[in-house]
Amino acid sequence: MQSSATVSFSSAAAAVPFSKPPASCLFRVKSIYTSSTTDPPSIMAAPIPKWAQKTITLPPHNRGCHLITPKILKEIGQDLSGFKCGLANLFLQHTSASLTINENYDSDVRADTETFLNRVVPEGRSAPWKHTLEGPDDMPAHIKSSMFGCALTIPITDGQLNMGTWQGIWLCEHRDAPTARKVVVTLNGI
Amino acid sequence: MQSSATVSFSSAAAAVPFSKPPASCLFRVKSIYTSSTTDPPSIMAAPIPKWAQKTITLPPHNRGCHLITPKILKEIGQDLSGFKCGLANLFLQHTSASLTINENYDSDVRADTETFLNRVVPEGRSAPWKHTLEGPDDMPAHIKSSMFGCALTIPITDGQLNMGTWQGIWLCEHRDAPTARKVVVTLNGI
Amino acid sequence: MQSSATVSFSSAAAAVPFSKPPASCLFRVKSIYTSSTTDPPSIMAAPIPKWAQKTITLPPHNRGCHLITPKILKEIGQDLSGFKCGLANLFLQHTSASLTINENYDSDVRADTETFLNRVVPEGRSAPWKHTLEGPDDMPAHIKSSMFGCALTIPITDGQLNMGTWQGIWLCEHRDAPTARKVVVTLNGI
Repeated sequence: MQSSATVSFSSAAAAVPFSKPPASCLFRVKSIYTSSTTDPPSIMAAPIPKWAQKTITLPPHNRGCHLITPKILKEIGQDLSGFKCGLANLFLQHTSASLTINENYDSDVRADTETFLNRVVPEGRSAPWKHTLEGPDDMPAHIKSSMFGCALTIPITDGQLNMGTWQGIWLCEHRDAPTARKVVVTLNGI
Repeated sequence: MQSSATVSFSSAAAAVPFSKPPASCLFRVKSIYTSSTTDPPSIMAAPIPKWAQKTITLPPHNRGCHLITPKILKEIGQDLSGFKCGLANLFLQHTSASLTINENYDSDVRADTETFLNRVVPEGRSAPWKHTLEGPDDMPAHIKSSMFGCALTIPITDGQLNMGTWQGIWLCEHRDAPTARKVVVTLNGI
Repeated sequence: MQSSATVSFSSAAAAVPFSKPPASCLFRVKSIYTSSTTDPPSIMAAPIPKWAQKTITLPPHNRGCHLITPKILKEIGQDLSGFKCGLANLFLQHTSASLTINENYDSDVRADTETFLNRVVPEGRSAPWKHTLEGPDDMPAHIKSSMFGCALTIPITDGQLNMGTWQGIWLCEHRDAPTARKVVVTLNGI
């Protein structure tokens, strides 16, 4: 899988800017899972991984599920293009909203998902919650946040988020009063 | 935690192929959390992290929960062995199935989990869904996908997925009609 | 985004201990998302990413949701301080407990979340489970574990977990009998 030749990784990496990794870098990434029928290349470039991090502020959204892929890509798309292979972590810094990946085409899917959440988590007079100081929608919002989670980790391949054809990134706002929401995006790869 | 000596990380790394990190690398990984009772080593090797990525196609599975650890390990096990420390990300490129980690021994746990999912998400005539064009099982499948999630990040330790004794990787197929499913696996570590 | 000058990354990195990255490193991390109005710096340091991994043993907790941020930070806080930018993965090695991120202030939120879990997952005589050999609380515990998940990935910024003001790390213990639980923590970054 890896050449045992004692090549100088550093000198190989030094001559190559990050945004245009050498062919040998691509080879390494692709071939690590490929049964090589020939000898490995004599020089195995090891690009030093890059890290990038940004906090995105999403504008207030009404209670419900919203497709935010375009907004996210607008913010990070240019930087994504610098990664041949990596991972993108999206971390929502809130406890009454959530991030999830789901269908990106029919808005009815998002409406139905909101319907489900409201059916499965009791709200109002019949609800058994002790934590009611911040309004009847607050405790249900916390529960929904843990059900769907506040973070996503998505593979990066050839400069793009490697999601399936029908996958999109959703912000699920669980509070009645819309507020801006912050997402810390961390990119890591080569 | 880190030596402040201005050693040349590059020259230390250059002489070592990825698949056999030097002892000093192991020391660094292990000791970063260990209260050292002696001075840190005078040379602190910093191996350049590796990245590997592969798309695995899982064959069609019937609706329900399925243990896929053996299949995943068959596909990536050899490459995992090249990582002393790292993370494995598994990303399912679909919105009507999910990946989760759960019990790896008794198949009744998987059957009961499927029973739970079908009870908690309404399906059929009594269901309130607007999105019904793709069949009565489609909208429930989307909801279940967000409940369990489509991605996992698992630590790699000493060349293996560092899961607990009873943990296994499950593919949960939420549609009635079995179809092949794709998983992007990204390995990252030293 | 990246300088195309053929500088030697290795020599730049070599003079700098991990715990105090050079200004140029900070620049790179911050600026990768910033439209530069001036030329990029002529020397672009590329620090070699660090990896650290540790298994933490959490003491037995009663059934319910528990805030464990202080315990986690006590274990990894000193090491976190060595990372300017990165990700922290927490992986619970069990299938009858879960990790989630939620409100860190009012303990009623944790109590209400436990109430919700017990309402949504049937337990006891009315439950339809086949897997009952390990007690009536075992199968519900497995389901809750997949609902909330066993792993978290949290961004690291300037040496700290970059969570929101009200976010905390919860251990949710789903079994009646408290037992110690293991969490594999993996830190990765620059």
